[in-house]
Parts: sequence; structure tokens; C-alpha cells
Amino acid sequence: MFEKEYDVIVVGGGHAGAEAAAAAANMGSKTLLVTMNLQTIGQMSCNPAMGGIAKGQIVREIDALGGYSGIITDKSAIQFKMLNKSKGPAMWSPRAQNDRMRFAEEWRLALENTPKVDFYQEMVSGLLVEGDKIVGVRTSLGIDVKSKAVVLTNGTFLNGLIHIGEKQFGGGRAGEKAATGITEQLTDFGFDSGRMKTGTPPRVDGRSLDYSKMILQPGDENPEKFSYLQTPVLTEQRDCHMTHTSALVHDLLREGFDRSPMFNGRIKSIGPRYCPSIEDKINRFADKDSHQIFVEPEGWHTVEVYVNGFSTSLPEDVQYKALKSVKGFENVKFFRPGYAIEYDYFPPTQLKHTLETKLVNNLYFAGQINGTTGYEEAASQGLMAGMNAHLKINEKDPFILKRDEAYIGVLVDDLITKGTEEPYRMFTSRAEYRTLLRQDNADLRLTPKSFEVGLANKERMERMEKKQNEADSFVSFFRKTSFSPEEINPILESVSSSKVRQSDKLFKVFSRPKVTMDHMLQLDSVSSFVEENKFNSEVLEQTEIQVKYSGYIEKEKNNADKLHRLENVKIPEGFDYSKLKSLSYEAREKLEAIRPVTISQASRISGVSPSDISVLLVFLGR
Amino acid sequence: MFEKEYDVIVVGGGHAGAEAAAAAANMGSKTLLVTMNLQTIGQMSCNPAMGGIAKGQIVREIDALGGYSGIITDKSAIQFKMLNKSKGPAMWSPRAQNDRMRFAEEWRLALENTPKVDFYQEMVSGLLVEGDKIVGVRTSLGIDVKSKAVVLTNGTFLNGLIHIGEKQFGGGRAGEKAATGITEQLTDFGFDSGRMKTGTPPRVDGRSLDYSKMILQPGDENPEKFSYLQTPVLTEQRDCHMTHTSALVHDLLREGFDRSPMFNGRIKSIGPRYCPSIEDKINRFADKDSHQIFVEPEGWHTVEVYVNGFSTSLPEDVQYKALKSVKGFENVKFFRPGYAIEYDYFPPTQLKHTLETKLVNNLYFAGQINGTTGYEEAASQGLMAGMNAHLKINEKDPFILKRDEAYIGVLVDDLITKGTEEPYRMFTSRAEYRTLLRQDNADLRLTPKSFEVGLANKERMERMEKKQNEADSFVSFFRKTSFSPEEINPILESVSSSKVRQSDKLFKVFSRPKVTMDHMLQLDSVSSFVEENKFNSEVLEQTEIQVKYSGYIEKEKNNADKLHRLENVKIPEGFDYSKLKSLSYEAREKLEAIRPVTISQASRISGVSPSDISVLLVFLGR
Repeated sequence: MFEKEYDVIVVGGGHAGAEAAAAAANMGSKTLLVTMNLQTIGQMSCNPAMGGIAKGQIVREIDALGGYSGIITDKSAIQFKMLNKSKGPAMWSPRAQNDRMRFAEEWRLALENTPKVDFYQEMVSGLLVEGDKIVGVRTSLGIDVKSKAVVLTNGTFLNGLIHIGEKQFGGGRAGEKAATGITEQLTDFGFDSGRMKTGTPPRVDGRSLDYSKMILQPGDENPEKFSYLQTPVLTEQRDCHMTHTSALVHDLLREGFDRSPMFNGRIKSIGPRYCPSIEDKINRFADKDSHQIFVEPEGWHTVEVYVNGFSTSLPEDVQYKALKSVKGFENVKFFRPGYAIEYDYFPPTQLKHTLETKLVNNLYFAGQINGTTGYEEAASQGLMAGMNAHLKINEKDPFILKRDEAYIGVLVDDLITKGTEEPYRMFTSRAEYRTLLRQDNADLRLTPKSFEVGLANKERMERMEKKQNEADSFVSFFRKTSFSPEEINPILESVSSSKVRQSDKLFKVFSRPKVTMDHMLQLDSVSSFVEENKFNSEVLEQTEIQVKYSGYIEKEKNNADKLHRLENVKIPEGFDYSKLKSLSYEAREKLEAIRPVTISQASRISGVSPSDISVLLVFLGR
Repeated sequence: MFEKEYDVIVVGGGHAGAEAAAAAANMGSKTLLVTMNLQTIGQMSCNPAMGGIAKGQIVREIDALGGYSGIITDKSAIQFKMLNKSKGPAMWSPRAQNDRMRFAEEWRLALENTPKVDFYQEMVSGLLVEGDKIVGVRTSLGIDVKSKAVVLTNGTFLNGLIHIGEKQFGGGRAGEKAATGITEQLTDFGFDSGRMKTGTPPRVDGRSLDYSKMILQPGDENPEKFSYLQTPVLTEQRDCHMTHTSALVHDLLREGFDRSPMFNGRIKSIGPRYCPSIEDKINRFADKDSHQIFVEPEGWHTVEVYVNGFSTSLPEDVQYKALKSVKGFENVKFFRPGYAIEYDYFPPTQLKHTLETKLVNNLYFAGQINGTTGYEEAASQGLMAGMNAHLKINEKDPFILKRDEAYIGVLVDDLITKGTEEPYRMFTSRAEYRTLLRQDNADLRLTPKSFEVGLANKERMERMEKKQNEADSFVSFFRKTSFSPEEINPILESVSSSKVRQSDKLFKVFSRPKVTMDHMLQLDSVSSFVEENKFNSEVLEQTEIQVKYSGYIEKEKNNADKLHRLENVKIPEGFDYSKLKSLSYEAREKLEAIRPVTISQASRISGVSPSDISVLLVFLGR
């Protein structure tokens, strides 16, 4: 059925798989996306939302690189919020609620509109490997499909096992079959595999809820969006609501603890620490007698509601009784109970920075198979794996993002260097240079790099260049243009900032904490420059950030440059660590396992101390 | 989780289940729809189309009764055709191509907008029965949900087994799990069960087809629609295409016959005779070296294409090789191969006219579980089962449609009287009184009946009454109004109909075969009457049919009345056929098994001869 060899086969059609297929195809690879069900491409398995703190930045980065997640999110959004807007711009994080059905449909149509993506519906149950190189996949019908590279994005499907109370049954998601065969084959090749756990809350009937007892959570008054391209901005939005658990709810939940697979030893694997089940929260924070619950609509028109914060694998009767005691949920009707799912993953220290496996050439892993959690983390890995698969088979240099270039760089470097034993999610705190990795400048940071290797298209590049040029010229304007005390002092007074006596450059006064672009626009010189140049809001925002945070940004850039010097000290491939007797035993073991490519990467391996790094530096002649 | 008892539980969310839930709820029953996957409600498992010959009439009947299928079809249609428009109005059959995703989404939203329908996602694995009465269902998690009545609409899911060539695996549909437990329990109760087979063709990538080699199949120039309510009319449409198999294609298919589960004995059950697989067609019509293939788009935007006429369970490589030899398919890419599926059904002679089972009170079956095939057949049974479940638990008279009242009446009566050993589908030839059962008058036939029992709503009733009154007044107008030879003769001449010498009533000349409403409208008297009364096109059509076919319609009404006399001869419940020694052995056996309620029904049982009927009539004192 498949006469010709594909360049890239992507297994799985979730966030990782969809981005991988789109990226490889848009760079020019003949790509086949194989999934167990073509009607569930781009399915949001858990909450109907994209973005959030650090995650929103990742979606912006995906978009800047030419991925689809931002576009799909914009097209299917029902609510938008810029989180952390009261903090500095490094913390601003876009987040959208989405229409679950529309999101999946938009993904499917976007992929169908990608000329080099083909589709095939079936379970992949095996990999075709020749020597140490992948050459294709085998389906459950026994069909062999040949390719030069394969990206695995199996999500929670590999030997997926669903738990609700004391019951357990095979499945990749509620109502869907698990996938078998691949883990077994990979462990035969010598891969380490492990089990992870994740969970999801009940879905309930919004018609059974009393929203008057909850706290309204509307979207932003002036909603922004994710994509740097021309995607729609929301003109109307759907509200979310907030409510809380109580001591009573916790007591009712505790009644089920003896039947909980989390506590009776049935679930052995580790779940996402920062997205814990409600029973986990009660257990770990025994002194807290209330937790937030966000009530999220699943779409524009559907009555289905996602109970964010109430993820659980307690027996369904316990879930029901407890949720009924939550304010507003007194008459709740369940669409389906929450559940936990255990699935196979492969510790990501078995990967290179390109997400290619070290053991099998041209085989890439992306998403939950690498031990991550989150749509955004998955999508970004898919994108990177798809890009690198294409580059590798075309004998081009790999596409690797550094830690000071992108959250995606932090993510991949963390995974392959430190590994993870619990589902890994992104935080701003994981990034050393988060002042550089802002949501507003992902295009400036990444679009040129992606354009250079052939993913980001010309339109994207031109939009970025226009924004960059305009922001540069506007920043220069502030550096060059002077103000008179007469025009600036009323503004300074209005924000209780000390008045000035003499004229100076606008840049200086604009740098003051309380002075904003809105104030600047009150000056005739500024507003007429903006009008003349027809700057849009993005340019105003970019300029404001570059002026007001120039000090911080400079400082972080300098720090990053220092890191780059270490980054440039390469460790030769196949380096023999046993020669270095003064390395600690632990460091040697870790270094041999992970095989960092630079001193910088070595320094981030847990168990490798600064003195170990000194030993290495001395040996390498630095 | 389910504290209160439901009135009606519907198991399954396909065409039958969705209509059953809507009907019961709209009549006032608290209804729970339980399905294995809430995201596949209203899924079109096979071709993306509704209606067709006899089937289109059923959809119109469903709509007239207050069901949703017509509305959903109109809202998701991408092409409309009135089939058989060149024949008499009894044969006119509406058919629509649909956007598969939109169709399912509209169904889901329609049900969500039905206040008394609740939803729950899980597999039902058992029935709760007390004595000879159903009292609820048990889910695979072991949750008992109580109800006064249950409607089973399991489609192809009961012990579903999918075949492709020599491979077979459990599943209810491609990519979906089979359902287990129910068949076993029902056979324990004493139900007979059997196996049936159906199949589906490959889905392919429309981008890989060469439409220039095919024959265009556009929609109607002036598309009509299904619902009698105010649903949208298509303003643009998507084209279908036609192509043909060839001797070469047949030869290529034959190469796989030894590996075909149809021919090597692996599939034992019988498939739909009038929707055969391509291998069946080749086998049965060995002299034909070409069959039609209709290439149907799956939606407004998707590139996925349904290969109507190429249903097959041959090995996937054989499917591929053969399809590639079909004109326009030279470079075809598969989304997924065709397959056959075997599933459990229950011979429908075990049901009453209400679709309630004879063995277990308040348990109803609808759709493929009764051995039927087709979305429309399933939907109409669901509607009838849902209505009757509601009426039964409220101790109201059952809602039964007679054979001269609706195709739905023919369908149900055929099923429970004759049973079926192969998938049953509707044909106009099954209806004795098809001149009465037209698509144009389903509202006139059925809306009052449904309104009377509380399903069809007031709006529907008022629209029907307006149409009826207007058509009546227009028909009277033709009966009363005279023409002059001067005004009518030019028209008669234009259609080569003999001229008239003297004035007469318009009715008379309008009855002539070649004279149409359009001709009548050329007369000032007619056109001004239409304008005055603001008659719409429906009224014009209805009037034209009532005038032009009045003879046929009268004749069939008389025949139907004769039948009703037999219909009125009831056979007492529990009648002891062994008393009637002169009945043939076969007749007695069949009569004891099926237990017809009237002489008329008895006469339709195969194996019951006219002389057996005479014996019965004599004994019953007629």
C-alpha cells in the first residue's frame, strides 16, 4: 500500500505528532502521519486550554519557529488572558481557553492543507530497524512502511492502563485503545523504559451547575493572541468560573483513600508534581482545607465542563459525593469520572539535543514518551524532532536552541541532560535567562533562525523584520529625542515621580518605573512620530519593553555570553572519563551515561560538581 | 453517581440512540444517553450521506414526527439531490451529502439543547432485570443506573469483530473498542441472537485523485432540504464524482479471493444484499466487467474522500492494487483500508410493534441490533422506541404506524412479522401503498399523530396545518375555477396536448400528463390567486401532486381501507393455535413464534398461506 519510501514517518497525531508532521513537511520532507484514529488528531486529552505561565511563552516560540499551535489556538479560542500582566514582561504569559472540537478540527484541516503530509489510520506496533538505523514502521495489520526517519509521539498510549478506584483497564485515553508492541521492541534494542502516571478530572454537565455561587473569571478586556501572523482576535469570549473545595469535601474524599490506586500501591509510577490529583493535594497539604477549582467550558456551544483542579483516580462514587459538596456543584451530573493513567516512557537522557535517540539513528522521540507533561511541552518537542529529522536525512546541521534563546532550548537541554523521573513541565524558574525569553520577542529571537533552516516562511520573516526595524527606530527615537521640563513635568507629577529641572533625552525619563508608553504618547513629539510611522501596538509594546528593561536585558545578555564561552568548550565524542581519576565516582557514572557535548552541558548534570568541571576543564586544556 | 431513577436509558449514541433519547426526552421523560465515547455521538460510521430512495422518505417521516435527523442533515449538508425527479412523485427521494464532522457536532449540540437528556460516557456491560421487567443498566465500572425503560442501540459494537483479509480483531468500528456482556446476558434470558456482517470501503486522500478523469456529479440546481421546519437551504454545494471499475480491476481483486474472509469461510454471517462488497458484486455478477464508483467528499474542507461502491474486506494490498487501476485513482493514497465487521443482532421477531421485546418488559431494541442496515432505518427505529418507551412507562397507548401511513410502519411491521436473516434495508417496493407514502406529504401524514401524543411541537403542527389548508384551498380553486379555450389552448399546444373547444374546470386540464403547475401559473387567474394568498413552493408542489395524481391516490386509499378491515380483526393475546388442526404445520409454528396481533399481520408472515388465513377468519367468526 505504500510503494514509495517516506522521508519522515510520525507516529501519533497529538500535539507532538501534529507539530512534527507539519514541521518536517513544511521543510520539504515527504511525511506520513500514522495514528490509531484520524478523527482524534489534535485532540485535547485533558483541559481545553493552551498556554499559561512559561507554557504560553512556549506556544509563542512554536509560532515564531513556524509551528501551528499558536494559529490553531487563536482560531479555536473562546477566552484569552495575559497572565502576570502586573509583573515584569518576562513573566507575562498568554493563556487561552479553547473549543475542544474546533481545536481538533482546525488541526486536522491545517495538516490536510500541508501539501507534503499524508495520513494513515492504524496502530503502529513495531519499528523497522536495520543495523543501528531506523528504516520505517510496521502496522498492526503487518504493513511495512519505509522511511528515512521516524518520530514517535505516543502520548499516554504505550501500554496505557486506566485506573478508577480499584478498577483498572487497558486504554490510551477514556474510550480509546492502548498501543502495544513498541515498548517491548525498544527495550529489546537496549532502551531503558519506565512508567509514568497522569490524571484527568471529571467532565460534568454545565446545566447542572449553579454559577451564581461561583466567582466569575472573564477573559481580558482587550484580548491578545498567540500567533505573530494575522490570526483572528476574539470579539466575544466565554466566561470561566472559580469555586473552592472545603474541609467537608476533603473529608468525603478521604473516605475513598483506602480504595485509591494512588495510596493502596496499585499505581506505582509518579505523577505530575505541579498538576497533582485532588487526593494528592489533600494528602500533601493536610493543613489546607480549601483548594481552588476552575470551571472551564469545553467550547462555544457545548454544555460540557472541565473541572480544573479536581483531577482524581478515586472511586467514581467518592468523586461524585465529594464534588457534590463543592459550592455550585450541589446538583452536579457527571459526563464521565476522572481517572488516572499509567503509560510507558523512555528516560530522555537516552536522547541527543536533536531529540534523536542515541541508540537508533534517525529515530526521534517527542512528547510524553520523553517523560514530559503538557500540550505545549509536547508540541515544541514535536516541532524540534520534526525539524531535526528533516535536517538529518538531508545531511544538514542540527537545529538546536540554546538555554538563553528559548524555553524550548531549556526544555530539551533539561530533558536530555538531567532526565526526569516525574512528568516534566516547564516553569519560568527553570530558565536562567528568562528576561530574554519573553513572550513578546519570541519572533525576534527565533524566526530568523528558523527562516535560515527553511521552516519559518517569508511572510513570517518579513513581519518579524518590520517589527524589529520599527521597534529599533522607535527606541532610537527615544534615545535621540529630548524633552523640555515643561512638557514632561505634568506627566511626572501625575505618577508622583520627581520633577526634572532641565531638558534631557526621552529615553531617560521613560526608563523610570512608573512612566509608561501611554504617558509618552501624551507628548506631541512621540505621538506624531508614531502616527507618521503607523506603528502598531506590537511595536509600541516591544519598544516600551526594550526601553524600560534595557538594563536587565543587557545584564542577562552578558551572563549568557559567559555561558556561551563554556558552551564552546566541546567534549570530544567518545571521551574516556575513566582516564580522569580525580572525577567523583558519581560524576563519572553520570557523564558516561549522558555524554554531554559541552562543558556547559556537563555542568548542568545533577551530581556533577564545580570541582568535577574544573578537572574536566584542566584536562581539556582550559 | 446516579441517585435518581431515570425514566428512560438509551444505550448508544448513533442514529438510533440519538433519536431515541431526543424523542423520549422531548415527550417528557428524564432520559440518560450512555455511550462509550461522548465524542462520537451522531457519528456517520459509513458513507457521509443521508436519504436516498425510500430512505429519504424515512428521514422526512422522522422529521414530520419531530425527530432530529432531518434538521441535522440540513444543517450539515454539502450537497442535495432529489432523486427520481423524472418519475412520479411517489418515487421522489431526497438525498444529501454531509460534512461528517459537522453532522456529529450538530447531533451532539442538538441533544445538549434538549433539556431532559443527560449524558454519561462508559460501556454498558449488563442490564438490570427484576422478574420480567428491565429496571436499569450496569456499566463496566460496575455502576448501576436505574430506569423505568431501556432502549438498546448498540449498532455494530456487540462483540464486534473486524476483518481485513486474513486478519481479524475485536472492535466496534475502526479504531474503537467492541462492547461485551450484553449479548451473553440476553441469551441467558432466552433471547435468540445471531451474527450479521457489514462492510465499509477505503477512505482515501482526495489530493491523490485525478477528478478530470471522472464524471462530475453536481448537486441539484435548486436544492431542497429535509426538514419541514425552517432549516437552511444550501447556497453553495460540493461536487461528487463518478468513475467505474474495469475488467482489470476485477482481475486484480480476484487475486485476493483466496485470502478473502468472505470466501474462505472466516466470515459466516450474511451481509447487506443491496449494499454488497465489491468482491461480492464481482462474484455474483461475473458477466459484468464494470461497476459504478461514487467519489464522495467527507465535508466542506477536508480532503478525505469516501469511495462509495468499493466496500471490501479483501487484504489491504489487494484493495490498494485494484483501486489504483480505477480511472482517476492511479495515484491513490489510502487514509485507511476498507473492512468488514461481524456483530451480534437479535432476530426482530422477538419484538412487539412498539419495538419492546416480548421477553423483557420495558426493554426496547432499535437499529442494527434488530438486523437492519442504514442510518435512516436505525434513526426511525430509535425514534419509535423512544416514543413508545415514554408512552409505556406513562401507561399511555402505544404509538404504532400502519403500513399505509409511513415507511416507518412498513419497516417495523416487516421486521417483527417477517424477521430478517440478512441486513434489512428499506425499498419503495416494500411498501404496498407507496403512492400514499410520499416525501412531500410526510408532515400531512404524521405530524398530527405525533402532535397528539406529545412529540411534534406546536410550531410543527401549525406549519403543517397552514400547508394543508393552503393546498386544500388551492385544489378547490382548481376544481371551481373555469378556463376559456382562448387562454388555455396556447398552453396545450405548446406541450402537444389536444386543444379544447369549450370552457371547463381548470382541474380537468391540469390533470393532463404534460400540463404542469408552471403552465397553470401562466394563467392570470391562477397566478393572481397564488399572489393573493402568498403560497410558497411547498404549497404549489403539494397542490400539483394532489391534482395530478388524485386518481392514483384515491385508488390506493381504497385499497388501504380494505386492509384496515383485516387489520381490525384482532387475534386474542395468548391465542391457542394448536386448537386449529387445519392450519399447516409451518403456519402454526410461525404464528406461535411471532404471535401476530391482527389477521392482517398474520397474513404477512412468510409461510402463512391465504388458506391458513381463511381458517383463522372462520374460527374468529368472520
